[in-house]
Parts: sequence; C-alpha cells; structure tokens
Amino acid sequence: MLEALKEEIWQANQELAASGLVVGTSGNVSGRDPETGLFVIKPSGVSFADLRPEQMSVVDASGQQVEGPLKPSVDTLSHAYVYRTRDDIQGVVHTHSRYATVFAVLGDDIPVLTTTHAALFGAPIPVSNYAVIGEEEIGKEIVENVGAGTAVLIRSHGVFTIGSDWRKALRSAQYVEECAEVAHLARQVREPEPLADETVAASRDWYLHGYGQKAILSGS
Amino acid sequence: MLEALKEEIWQANQELAASGLVVGTSGNVSGRDPETGLFVIKPSGVSFADLRPEQMSVVDASGQQVEGPLKPSVDTLSHAYVYRTRDDIQGVVHTHSRYATVFAVLGDDIPVLTTTHAALFGAPIPVSNYAVIGEEEIGKEIVENVGAGTAVLIRSHGVFTIGSDWRKALRSAQYVEECAEVAHLARQVREPEPLADETVAASRDWYLHGYGQKAILSGS
Amino acid sequence: MLEALKEEIWQANQELAASGLVVGTSGNVSGRDPETGLFVIKPSGVSFADLRPEQMSVVDASGQQVEGPLKPSVDTLSHAYVYRTRDDIQGVVHTHSRYATVFAVLGDDIPVLTTTHAALFGAPIPVSNYAVIGEEEIGKEIVENVGAGTAVLIRSHGVFTIGSDWRKALRSAQYVEECAEVAHLARQVREPEPLADETVAASRDWYLHGYGQKAILSGS
Amino acid sequence: MLEALKEEIWQANQELAASGLVVGTSGNVSGRDPETGLFVIKPSGVSFADLRPEQMSVVDASGQQVEGPLKPSVDTLSHAYVYRTRDDIQGVVHTHSRYATVFAVLGDDIPVLTTTHAALFGAPIPVSNYAVIGEEEIGKEIVENVGAGTAVLIRSHGVFTIGSDWRKALRSAQYVEECAEVAHLARQVREPEPLADETVAASRDWYLHGYGQKAILSGS
Repeated sequence: MLEALKEEIWQANQELAASGLVVGTSGNVSGRDPETGLFVIKPSGVSFADLRPEQMSVVDASGQQVEGPLKPSVDTLSHAYVYRTRDDIQGVVHTHSRYATVFAVLGDDIPVLTTTHAALFGAPIPVSNYAVIGEEEIGKEIVENVGAGTAVLIRSHGVFTIGSDWRKALRSAQYVEECAEVAHLARQVREPEPLADETVAASRDWYLHGYGQKAILSGS
Repeated sequence: MLEALKEEIWQANQELAASGLVVGTSGNVSGRDPETGLFVIKPSGVSFADLRPEQMSVVDASGQQVEGPLKPSVDTLSHAYVYRTRDDIQGVVHTHSRYATVFAVLGDDIPVLTTTHAALFGAPIPVSNYAVIGEEEIGKEIVENVGAGTAVLIRSHGVFTIGSDWRKALRSAQYVEECAEVAHLARQVREPEPLADETVAASRDWYLHGYGQKAILSGS
Repeated sequence: MLEALKEEIWQANQELAASGLVVGTSGNVSGRDPETGLFVIKPSGVSFADLRPEQMSVVDASGQQVEGPLKPSVDTLSHAYVYRTRDDIQGVVHTHSRYATVFAVLGDDIPVLTTTHAALFGAPIPVSNYAVIGEEEIGKEIVENVGAGTAVLIRSHGVFTIGSDWRKALRSAQYVEECAEVAHLARQVREPEPLADETVAASRDWYLHGYGQKAILSGS
Repeated sequence: MLEALKEEIWQANQELAASGLVVGTSGNVSGRDPETGLFVIKPSGVSFADLRPEQMSVVDASGQQVEGPLKPSVDTLSHAYVYRTRDDIQGVVHTHSRYATVFAVLGDDIPVLTTTHAALFGAPIPVSNYAVIGEEEIGKEIVENVGAGTAVLIRSHGVFTIGSDWRKALRSAQYVEECAEVAHLARQVREPEPLADETVAASRDWYLHGYGQKAILSGS
C-alpha cells in the first residue's frame, strides 16, 4: 500500500537526518497521498539510521494507523489535524533546530530582518502557545498561527513547517533555522530594525511570482 | 574473551567520534556484560581513528584490567564505581561537548527549557563538585548527582551519561549537548523561565510510557 | 556553446554548495568567457543537488539569456552589470553566509581585525544600501561600494564577491565569512580595536606581492 | 630527498584541512627530520585539495629552500626559527581557528577553565605581540611566549602550536580551539573563575605521567 510514497517519505526522513536540523530520534517528515487522503509518517522513537522504508506508518485522515509494523510518530495526530484542515498541504516537517528552538523557548517571533526571510515567509515566524505532545493540540496551534506562511514555532518545543509537498516543507525548515540564526546573532549586538512592511510584502510578492522556474504557489 | 562486546563497544566509540561531541583522544564509551559483570572500555590516550576492536580493555567490577594489550582509560575506576553501585546501568559515555562544558565551567545546572529536555531527563541536568581524574571520585559524583536522570556535568570538566545500554547513554550525551546549546543561547538574550514542575513531570511521564515502540524503562 | 565553461561553473556551484555558505537553492556563482563576453550562471530556484551542467544559463553582457533550458538566476542582471562595468572581473559569487549576513542586517561594515582580513581585503568590508532583487540595483551597489576590494555586503540581504576568476571570488566568499565570524564573536566580548591603517596597508601590499606562487593581481 | 617525510607532512596538511581549523589556503603543518635537520613545509598559497606530496618544500635550518618546485610557505622563516632554537620540537602547526583567533584579536590569554586545558597546556594560552608575516618575527614571538606549553596566539593573527612530532602539534591545535570556544562561551554568561594554580599543576602533572600508553614527554 502506497509503496512509492513510503519510499519517498523514508528518503525525506533521511534528508532530514542529513540536514543537521535533528538529533537522535527527534523530528519527522510526513507526506500525504492526494488521491486516498492517507499520509505516510515516521514511526515513533526509531533512529533515522535504523529506519527502513517498509517500516513507515500509513495513517488515515482521522489519525488512525492503517498499515505499518510499528507505532507511528507521537506527532501523528497533529500531522493529521493539519492535513484535515488544510487541503493545500501535502507535506509536514518537524524539527528542534537549535536557533529556532531558542526563539520558541523565549516565546519570541522571529522578526523579518532579511530579504530571504521576507521572500520565503512574508511575515515574522510566529510562536504558538505551549501544547502537550501526543494529541492534536500541536496541530491546532500550527493551523491557528501559520496564517499565509509555512512555519510555526511551538512554544518551548521546536519547529513545524508545512508545504504543498514535503520538499517545500523541508526547505522551509532549513530557511527557518537560517533566519533564526541570523536574527539571534544580530540581536546579540543590538536590537535590529525589522524590514518595513512594504519591503516585506514586495519581497514576498516577487518571490511568489518571479523566483524559480514558474510562479511559486501561495502557501508553499 | 567478550569478543562480541569488544567489537560492539569499539563501534560505540567510533559513533562517539563521529558525533562531534569529542576531540582528539578525549571521551570514551564503556559497556558492561550483564552475565559476567565485566565491562569493556577504550584504552587511554588512543585516537578513535587508530583504535582497533582487539585493543579494547576488559575490566572487572573493582576496576582491575583483566584483558587487553593497552592501559585502559583514565576514567576506568569511575566507570567501575558507577557499574558497582548501579545494577541497572550497562553503558557509560563521557564527552567534553562544548555547550555542556560551558555549564560545567560556570557551575550552573542546565535548566529545563524544552519539552525535549523534560522528556529525556525529567529535571535540570546537575553539575557536580570538582573531582580529580584517575581515581573513582568522578564515579562518586555521578552516582550522587544523577538522581533519576541519566546525565551529570562534572565541574570544570565535561559530561557523563549513563543508560541501561550504551546506545541510550550515547543518545543522552547528544541530547545533553542540544539542551545545553539551546539554554546557553536563550540566556544570551534574557534569562528564560524554566518549564513548570508539573509540565516537566507530565512530559517525562509521557516519554517513559508513550514514546517509542514500547515503554521506555525509568532511568534510561 | 561554451560547454567547458558551463561544466566549470556547474562545478563552481557544487563547490559553493559544499562550502557551507549557502542553504537550499540560495546563492550562485557565475563566470565570464573573456573572448565572447558571455557569462554562465546558475538557473533560478534549482537546488544544487539537482543541477546538471547542461542546465546552466548562458547570458550576454546586457543580461539577456542566449542559451539554456531554464530561466537564469534572479541575480542575473546584477551579475551582468558588474561584468559590464568591470573588465577585470571574470567571476562573481553570491551567498547568504550567516555571520556576514548579520553585519548586512545591522548595516555595519566588517572592521579589519586580523592579518587575514588585511591581506585578503585591504579595508573594512563595506555594507551597501538596501537594493531590490531582480533588476541591476544590486550590481550597482556592488560596483559603487567594492572599491579596490573584492567583497560587498548587500544591506539586509547577503554577500557578493568578485574576482579575476570564480575561484578567487569563491575563496573571497569563504574569507568574508571567516572575518565576519571572528569580528562578531570579538565584539561580543568588547568592541575590538581595528588594525591601524598602516598595518592594513602593509599586510595588503605584502599579500599582493609576497604571497602565493606569483604576485597576486590587484583586485583579486 | 626525504620522500617519506614529504608524504607524511603532505598527509598532515590534509588532516589539517579536514580538521575544520583552516579555510582556503590558510594554515600549514611542517615537520623536521631529526637526522638532517631539514624540515618539510607546505608551499605558499596552494589549496590543500590541489596539493601533491612531491610539491612539498624542503627547507634547511636557516630557512633556505633546498628542494621543491614551489615557493615555500610565507611562514617558513618563523618555522625555521622555532626549529633552530628548540631542539625538542619536530612539528609546527599554524591555524586561524575561529575562537582562538578571537582571543588573539582581543589580546586576551585563554584562561585555564577546564581539566582538559590544565592537562594539555598547564597554563593560560598566551597571546604574543603583533608580528609581521614573512620574516622570522612570528617565530621569535612563539619561542618567547610558549614557555613550557605548546601553543601561542599571535596577536591579531592566529595560532601556532609546537610538538615533539607534528601529530602532537596538530592535536594541540584542536585542543586550543576547544579551550578557546569553551572560554569564549563561558564569559558570554559571566566572567568565569580560572582553576586554582595547584589544580592546574596537579592536572598537568597527572597528564604527563598518568595519561596515555606511556608517560607523555614534557613540552609535547
């Protein structure tokens, strides 16, 4: 069942492990099959190096596991919540990347300081309320806070990014960390002035319509 | 004698070297054979790249070497002390990972700022008194300070982690460094509020009973 | 057309990706063919891992694409501006390297604190005004600010380096980041005293005439 | 001439490049042949990736090149000075490693904060006066400042380490950076108390007589 997607999301989780954004067994990538509405996610507490494609969990829209030899990620109900409420999202990534988690600990949004941040996210990266792990609370915080963006910091926890496919969500996770590191280091010197709203809007608009090989879809 | 364990603990030391948590010849992993009570440890002052499985030292519960062509680690008596006083522990890891060592230098516990820290350790990571290297003083500091956790910062020195097997101890060493880095960076901005005790307890309980493929044993 | 240069600049972009100075699809290297005046540049929004040599874009001095299956980098008109106004420059590199971007965010020049900075750049690395992406404004800022040096920080954006060939421009990009990191970390302790102008001039002169296997050309 | 030593010191320079302590063409390792008194050093301005064993320069005690197709390192006369004045030294390593260079920029010795620093160096790592590159001034600063230790920070420049062989000098260069990073990060929180002189002396004595597979010789 969904063998190609299992292989693909297994590969996505390998790329996540290689990205330097996660440690040990933390973090995960899921991807949804648009036809069936089922999604594939990493099993819970398995190290990326030991993970095999056939061990990936297949889960339905309600968060119930429908296939796979192992218990799915503890974040499964939150991924399911995102997929149920956001038809446009087919990939979700979770990390505890260091500098972004610092903002999550402090409860500070990541301010828009660079053209990269403006283009990729179009707004400060918001930090949610605290949410317990294991149920769908984190999913609710993601949907409530993400707005037109693709990334949310979960208070005292880490980062979730979403995208029209997992590759975009994973790329967002990398850029969240880049933006967080630059913002953290800059404010070690002095509180930096965020980019003006018009500048942010213009950069975001340019990115959605002028960057890459075709117009980039909103929300991705 | 214990050829499989020597091969396994040699491999563990290679993983330690690859983890970025150690430099040069510093740091070590040991693992105990539950049947004989003997443990295998890295020889002293040998670089990880030059180390061969057959060079690993076999040591008894009193800290006496019983096999191996080289002198065992200078931390051997401290590993032995831990094994003698803690039947539940079969793996010990030692690093000088950078951010954790900063807390050890300052004499500051690592406060619980994230759900990861709460789940993995269940309490601040404590810093011990200063202890000389070479005898069992460090082992005593580990046992006295570790409580129900798995990690201790040795004052002005580095990190020791323990586990029901060496893989868990090595994973703890990675998470200690992640927690230390996030805590250090956060307090560069302003002193962060630690998570409330109930939140820490709930996260730790959830981790021990809800994370991974089966309940995770207390103390590991 | 220009197959050897396409292969070479493709390789240059792979070295950029391996340098740790760029993330995702950000950053680019271009190189000019001195005979035809055409230059080769990375296509827009393509990840370095997916990029193939035959996908590289060939562009003329006015910034018009003359070959290649994909739309060229959004920075193409700025590269073209640099090549049109600086006959001595045959390579341009763009990164968002972390510490240098912090200086770009704060609007601070990178001061000359080390013999490496003095030798390689001969002056503080200047930060430009803000410039929109997509037209030649960034190119104008580079040419206006670069002076006798090889690197400019684009305000709230990142780094551009130039050289008599792309290898020198790429090396400059690595040294910009090294100088930025040292300068950022030093001023976390206290505001460091820049090297005296005579010391900088002497180091730069020595580098241009005494370092390497032959005199290094000015401006490279 | 000295083919084995050329191969060995070429390999040493490759390990230096892989260590993360150097960037571009910066940094070098030399090693002396105790019989002839000649030493082998990296040629000037050649990138580590392009370097071939047969390109290594052979230099006599006065600093004159006696073999090799390329001009030797600009630091050659300083290496020669060290070898002439210190019979016990057969390896010299030079880096611009980041955190150590921050101390060199600020003119601050690296204080002894950890048992690692105490054991490996036995004293604060001293920072020299400013010295011009290209003659033997840097060599003089090394010899004047190094005392019974193995590392000197050259003011506003970088790090030199010395050893009874190049492996020990290279290991010292790695530990200098570890000690510098821990010390820099610690003082970002508050000025840390250095270890007491007796503690440092005891750790150093223990390291020289109790660590590794045989007593470690003083000065290495």
